[in-house]
Amino acid sequence: MPKPTLQTLKGFRDFLPQEKRRRDFVMGKIKQTFELFGFEPLETPTLEYASILLGKYGKEADKMVYTFKDRGGRKLALRYDQTVPTARFLAQYKNKLPKYFRRYQIQNVFRADKPQKGRYREFTQCDADIYNSSSYLADAEILAVYYFIYKNLGIKSITLKYNDRQTLISALKSYATKKIDVFSIIQSIDKLDKLSQSEIVQELVKKGLKASQAQAAIDSIKKSAPSENLTQIIKASQSLGIPPSVLQFTPTLARGLDYYTGLIFEGNIPEYTVGSVGGGGRYDNLIKNLSDVDIKAVGFGLGFDRTVEAAIQLNLIPQKKTTTKVLVTIFDNLNNSLKTANQLRQNYINTEIYPNQENLKKQLKYANQNNIPFVLIIGPDEAKANQIALKDMTTGKQQTLSLDQVIKKLK
Amino acid sequence: MPKPTLQTLKGFRDFLPQEKRRRDFVMGKIKQTFELFGFEPLETPTLEYASILLGKYGKEADKMVYTFKDRGGRKLALRYDQTVPTARFLAQYKNKLPKYFRRYQIQNVFRADKPQKGRYREFTQCDADIYNSSSYLADAEILAVYYFIYKNLGIKSITLKYNDRQTLISALKSYATKKIDVFSIIQSIDKLDKLSQSEIVQELVKKGLKASQAQAAIDSIKKSAPSENLTQIIKASQSLGIPPSVLQFTPTLARGLDYYTGLIFEGNIPEYTVGSVGGGGRYDNLIKNLSDVDIKAVGFGLGFDRTVEAAIQLNLIPQKKTTTKVLVTIFDNLNNSLKTANQLRQNYINTEIYPNQENLKKQLKYANQNNIPFVLIIGPDEAKANQIALKDMTTGKQQTLSLDQVIKKLK
Repeated sequence: MPKPTLQTLKGFRDFLPQEKRRRDFVMGKIKQTFELFGFEPLETPTLEYASILLGKYGKEADKMVYTFKDRGGRKLALRYDQTVPTARFLAQYKNKLPKYFRRYQIQNVFRADKPQKGRYREFTQCDADIYNSSSYLADAEILAVYYFIYKNLGIKSITLKYNDRQTLISALKSYATKKIDVFSIIQSIDKLDKLSQSEIVQELVKKGLKASQAQAAIDSIKKSAPSENLTQIIKASQSLGIPPSVLQFTPTLARGLDYYTGLIFEGNIPEYTVGSVGGGGRYDNLIKNLSDVDIKAVGFGLGFDRTVEAAIQLNLIPQKKTTTKVLVTIFDNLNNSLKTANQLRQNYINTEIYPNQENLKKQLKYANQNNIPFVLIIGPDEAKANQIALKDMTTGKQQTLSLDQVIKKLK
Repeated sequence: MPKPTLQTLKGFRDFLPQEKRRRDFVMGKIKQTFELFGFEPLETPTLEYASILLGKYGKEADKMVYTFKDRGGRKLALRYDQTVPTARFLAQYKNKLPKYFRRYQIQNVFRADKPQKGRYREFTQCDADIYNSSSYLADAEILAVYYFIYKNLGIKSITLKYNDRQTLISALKSYATKKIDVFSIIQSIDKLDKLSQSEIVQELVKKGLKASQAQAAIDSIKKSAPSENLTQIIKASQSLGIPPSVLQFTPTLARGLDYYTGLIFEGNIPEYTVGSVGGGGRYDNLIKNLSDVDIKAVGFGLGFDRTVEAAIQLNLIPQKKTTTKVLVTIFDNLNNSLKTANQLRQNYINTEIYPNQENLKKQLKYANQNNIPFVLIIGPDEAKANQIALKDMTTGKQQTLSLDQVIKKLK
C-alpha cells in the first residue's frame, strides 16, 4: 500500500521520553497541591454531544470547537475546555456530590486555532473549582491553591494580579451604548498590558465610543480602589499563607471571558516573558445558564504547557535523562544476569537488561549513550566467584561486589 | 437558549472522584513497574492524519476508527490504538532514540464499536514494547514486565497462556485454500476458548473447509509441542522471576490480530471471569509495513479498565473515600482557622476549609457525609487558650491539643 506522510498534524505534538518525564514531574507536583487543599480528581469524556459545547464560548470560539458527525449521525464535539463539560456533569450528578464540591481536572483540550509559537491545537489544562459556595472564603482558597502550586514547584516569584469584575462593570456601564456593550469595553480594556493606551482608545473608537469617552473610561478604571469584597478575599488569602507581595491589585485587569461575576485574577512569572500562566475568578451564573442548575462557582484554569516551560527555564525539574538506574549486561551464561536483574527489581531498583547477545563494548556504549549511570557485569570469572562487577559510568570506576552490596549501593 | 440534553454519549464515561482515585492508584502501580523494567514514557497526539491510521487494522476495524474532516479539509482520525501512532513516531524520530527502545504509553483510544457491558468507545490502554531487538531476551522481558505488573498490584493468581504464531502457521498452512487463507483459519481457532469444537468446525466449513479437514486442523493444533523459540523465551522469563505455574503453554491460543510473527500470549485472572486482561506478542514486520522503517518489535497492550475492575473485585485498592485528612471548621474569628489550615498544609496534611460561615453542627455533618476522618475546631475558648479541639469522626472522641500535637497526630 502507499505509505502516508509520516508526520503529526500542525499544532499537535509527540512527547519524547525526556519531555514526557518533565511533564509528569510537574503534573505530580500540581496533583499533590490540589489534594493538599482537599480537591478531588474528576474525569469527563473527550467527546460530548456538540449541543452541550456549542453556543457556550461565544461566536468566535465556537469556530474553534472541533465538531463532526459520527456514523450514527450524532453531532459530536471534542473537549474545548473543562468548565462546560463539568457544568454538564454537575447537573447530571448533583445529588451524588458533596455540598461544597472541590474538584480538580487535568485533561487535554482541543482548539482548531491557528498554530503559532506557544499555541497548540491539543494541550493540557489543569482546572480547580469550588462549587456551591458564594462565600469569599472559597475565593481565598482558590487564590491560595493557585499560589501554592507555584510555590511547591519552586517558582516563588509568581505574582497574582487581581481585580473585581463588578468594579469594572460599575465604572464602565455608563460608557456603554447600543453600539458597544460593557463587555466589549471590558475586552478592550483587558489589552492594556499588551497595547498602548492610545491603541486601546483607537480600538474603542472603532467600536463606537468617542475618543474623549474612551479616554475617560480608561482613566476611571485606573482610579478604581479595591472593592470591599476584594479586600475581604485578599485578607483571608494572606491568612492562608500567600505573602502580601505576591498579590497585586490591578484595576485594569479585565480577563477576556464574559462570564466572570466577581474576583478575577491572573498569574505571572516575571522570568517567563511569554505571557500569563493562567488565571480565573468567580462565575456565579455560568452553570445555571448552561444547565439550569443554580450552582455558584469560583476557580481557575492553569496553563500546563507554559508552567512546564517556566519550570524548565528556571531549572526546577530534575535533569534525569532516564529513570533507569542500571544496565545488566549479557554474557554466554545468561542465567546469572537474568536472576540478578530480578533481584534488583524486587528491591525497587529500575533495571534494564541488554536485550541482545553482543560484545561487552557495545553494551557499555549503549549504557553511555543512554545515560544509564551504572552497569553490572557478570562474566565467567565473576560468576564463578559469586560476585558482580559494578561499573560507575560517570567516574568509570569498577568494583567487584556481592549482590547484597550492589543492592545497598544502588538503592 | 434551549438547554441541551445533559448526558454523556453512549460508550463514554465520567469518572467521579472515588472511581478516578482507584484508577489513579492502579495507574501508579503500572507506571512504577514499567519503570522498574527500564521502560520510558511516551505520548502521541489524540488526532492523527486519517491516512496514517486507516488500512492498518483490517476492513472491519477501519469502520470503527472515528474520522472526520477539519475546517481546513484535512481528514483526521482519533487514536484507535497506540501501535500505529508509535510506528509513525519511530519512523519520524528513529535517529533520536536508543538502539533498543523500550517505551510505555498510557493513553485513551477511541472505537466506534457497539457499546455493551465492559466495552466502551473511549478507554485507556497501557502498552509496552521493546523495539529493534529480535532476541528472545526481549520476549522474556516483555512477559516478565507483564507478570510483575499484576504481581505488584497484588494479583498473584494471574496466568499467562502462551504459544508461537509460527507453530500455528506451520501446522495450518496445508489446510489453507484459495477460499480460506491461514489467517482466517487462525481466527476461527482463536475462538476455541469461547465456542465448542463443533461450533468451530461449523465456522470453518462455512469459510470453505471440509468438515473432516476442519477437524483435522483442530486436532493437529492440539497436538503441537512448544517450539524451540518458545522454550528459550520461557526459560529466560523464569530466570527473570515468573513462577513456572503462571506460564501455561496453550497450543490453541491464536490471538486475533494478523500481524504476530512469533510469541503470542494472553493474561487471565481466574477470579475475574469477564475475559482476558490483555496480551501481546512479537510482530517483526508490522512497523516496516506501516512506515518503511525495518524495526522488529515485541510488546503488549494491557486492558486498563478490566485490570481496575479485577483489582476492585479482589479488594486490592485502598478504600479511601477521600484523600482529605481533616476539615478545619470556621467560626466568627476566621483568622485562626485559616492560619491553622496553612500550617497543616505546609506539613503536607491534606486539609479542607469549610468554605462558608455556618453553624458547627452543619460543618460536622458535612465532614461526616464526606468521610473526612478528622475535624478541627477553634472556637473562642480554644483561640483564647491557643489550643485546638481535634475530633476523630470515626470514634467521636475529641481532644484539646496544641498545633504541634495536632500536626504530629495527623501526619
